[in-house]
Amino acid sequence: MSGHATRGEFGLIEWIRERTAARPCPWTTLGIGDDCAILAPTAGRGMLATTDMLMDGRHFVLERDGAEAVGYKALGVNISDIAAMAGVPRVALIAVALPRSKAVAIAQGLHQGARAMADRFNVELVGGDTNAWDGPLVISVTLLGETTERGGVTRSGAQAGDAILVTGALGGSLQSGRHLRPEPRVELALAIHRIAPIHAMIDLSDGLAGDLGHILDESGGKGAILDADQIPIHADVPAAARDDDPLEHALADGEDFELCLTVGPHDLGRILARFPGIRRIGIVTDESARLIRFGDGQIKELTARGFDHLRATP
Amino acid sequence: MSGHATRGEFGLIEWIRERTAARPCPWTTLGIGDDCAILAPTAGRGMLATTDMLMDGRHFVLERDGAEAVGYKALGVNISDIAAMAGVPRVALIAVALPRSKAVAIAQGLHQGARAMADRFNVELVGGDTNAWDGPLVISVTLLGETTERGGVTRSGAQAGDAILVTGALGGSLQSGRHLRPEPRVELALAIHRIAPIHAMIDLSDGLAGDLGHILDESGGKGAILDADQIPIHADVPAAARDDDPLEHALADGEDFELCLTVGPHDLGRILARFPGIRRIGIVTDESARLIRFGDGQIKELTARGFDHLRATP
Repeated sequence: MSGHATRGEFGLIEWIRERTAARPCPWTTLGIGDDCAILAPTAGRGMLATTDMLMDGRHFVLERDGAEAVGYKALGVNISDIAAMAGVPRVALIAVALPRSKAVAIAQGLHQGARAMADRFNVELVGGDTNAWDGPLVISVTLLGETTERGGVTRSGAQAGDAILVTGALGGSLQSGRHLRPEPRVELALAIHRIAPIHAMIDLSDGLAGDLGHILDESGGKGAILDADQIPIHADVPAAARDDDPLEHALADGEDFELCLTVGPHDLGRILARFPGIRRIGIVTDESARLIRFGDGQIKELTARGFDHLRATP
Repeated sequence: MSGHATRGEFGLIEWIRERTAARPCPWTTLGIGDDCAILAPTAGRGMLATTDMLMDGRHFVLERDGAEAVGYKALGVNISDIAAMAGVPRVALIAVALPRSKAVAIAQGLHQGARAMADRFNVELVGGDTNAWDGPLVISVTLLGETTERGGVTRSGAQAGDAILVTGALGGSLQSGRHLRPEPRVELALAIHRIAPIHAMIDLSDGLAGDLGHILDESGGKGAILDADQIPIHADVPAAARDDDPLEHALADGEDFELCLTVGPHDLGRILARFPGIRRIGIVTDESARLIRFGDGQIKELTARGFDHLRATP
C-alpha cells in the first residue's frame, strides 16, 4: 500500500481512515495506512480469500452509473464469492486506477459506495492502493472472510441424486442495471448450511448454465437434468427478452449474484419448507449428459450459453 | 474469482494450477479455482495483508518491458511491503485486465514472471481474476504473509535518538530499468529484527525523503537530521543525473525497494558490524525540523522531493 502513491493518496487515506473507524473488525490489529495491515483471523476457522476486478466499459459505465454505484458493486461481487463458500466476510483491500482528471472525486464516490455495501455486512477496509492515470477506471477488490465451524462449501462436492437449488430469480440483470446492486446471499447461505450440509455451491456471475457446469465439472464430471418450468425467471427479463426465449436469459445472462447449490435429497423438504424463496430446479446425475426437460416432454442439451435447439436428445 | 470470466479464463486457471502445484504453502487448504481460496494462517502469528496495482504507462511500459517483467515486478513490490513489516510472505491473489488482442500470451507472460518471483520467496498463488478489455494492461496483486514471533514492525515506532538506516544504495532505478527487478529485503529485515528490535520501518517506493517523512509523521511528528555524505548513491545515478545533483536522485527518485528503518542507538554498532551493506544515514530527533547536513557544514531543509536549496536553515 505504500507503493506508487499519487500526490493525493495520503489525503485520501486520511479521509478513508476517518470514515472507517466506526465498526472495526475483530480481526484488525493494525488497519489502513502502513505498508501492510496486521490481522488476527479467528482461530480454528478456515480463512477465505477472493479477488475481483471491475473495469469501465466492461462491468460498469462510469459516465452513466457513477462512481458510488461502482464501489457498491465492486465490494458486493466479492462478498457474493464469500457467500458462495457459506462464509462470513471480514476485511477488504481495494486498489484503484483513477482517471487523472477527476481522481479525487471518483475515489471518494467509490469509497462511499464500497462503504455502504461494507456496512451492510460489517466489512472493514484495511488496505488500499490509489493510483491516477490517463486510462479508464479500474477497481480491484480483495476480500477476506472466514468459514463457520461447519467449514467452507466448495464447488466440488455435488453427488448424484442431489437436488439443484437456486436462491432467487434469474436473468435480465445487465439490461435492467440490477447488476450494479448485488444482494450477496451471505445470511441465506449460512442459514441453509446451519440446518443441512450444502454439498456444493457457486455464485451465479456468468449465468446458471455455465456456473452449474463448473459445479458438475469440479465434482468429478457429474451430469444434471434441469426442469425448465422450475427455473425462476426474473421480472427484469421481459423487457430484455424481446424476441428471445425468456428462459435463455435466465440460463445465460449472468451477474444475478444468486447462489446455485446442491443438497442431499433427504434434506430437500426441510430446506424448501424453511426458505420459501429457494427453488429446486433439477437433479444431479451420474451420467455425463447435462439436459433440460420441458413441460411438453421435450429434452434438450444444456450448453454453457443456454440450451441447444438443434441437437435435441431423445 | 468466479466473477466476470473471460472465455479463456478457465483454460488459463488450469494452466496456472499445473504450474503452482510444486510448492504449496502450508497455509493452503484449497488453492486456486473455486469462488474463494481456503487458508489456515499460522496460529499465534499476526497476518499481514497488502495490495499494489501496476498500470501500463505508469509503472511499466508493456511494449518495451514485456509481460514477464511486469509479473515479476508486480509480485516483488508487494513482497517488499511484507519485508517492510519484518514479515514472511505466504500467498498471493492476482487480478488482471488484459488487452484483448493478446490476452492469453500476456497472461502467460505475467504468470511466468510472477511465478519466478514467487518461487524465490516460497509464495503460492491461491486466487485470481482474469479479464480482457480494450484498455491497457492493469495488474493488481494482494499478498498475505505473517509476522514472526516478535510481531510486525510498523512506521509509527521511531523514537528520538534512533539511528536511521537504509539497506542499500538509492536512486536512478526508474531511469535504469532496475525498478522492474526489485530485490525485496525479506531475509535482511528478518535477520536484523532477530538481533535487535526495529523501531520503525518502510520500504522505499516513493523516495527516501518522502518515505522517511511517513515514518516521522506516523511516529508522532518526529524530526530528523540526515548526513548527506552517508546517503548511499546507486551506481545507476550518474547516467540519470546529467546536470542534477546525484544526491537529489538518491533522496527522491523512488522505486528502489530498499528498506529505511530506525533502531535504538545501543543496537546500532551490533547491526552495522553484522550487516555491512547497511548504512547509517542520520538520526531521529524530538524537534519537528527535518534537515540534511552537508560535509561543508551547511544544513538545508529536507522536503518530500529532496531538499530545499533556497530556504537554507542556519
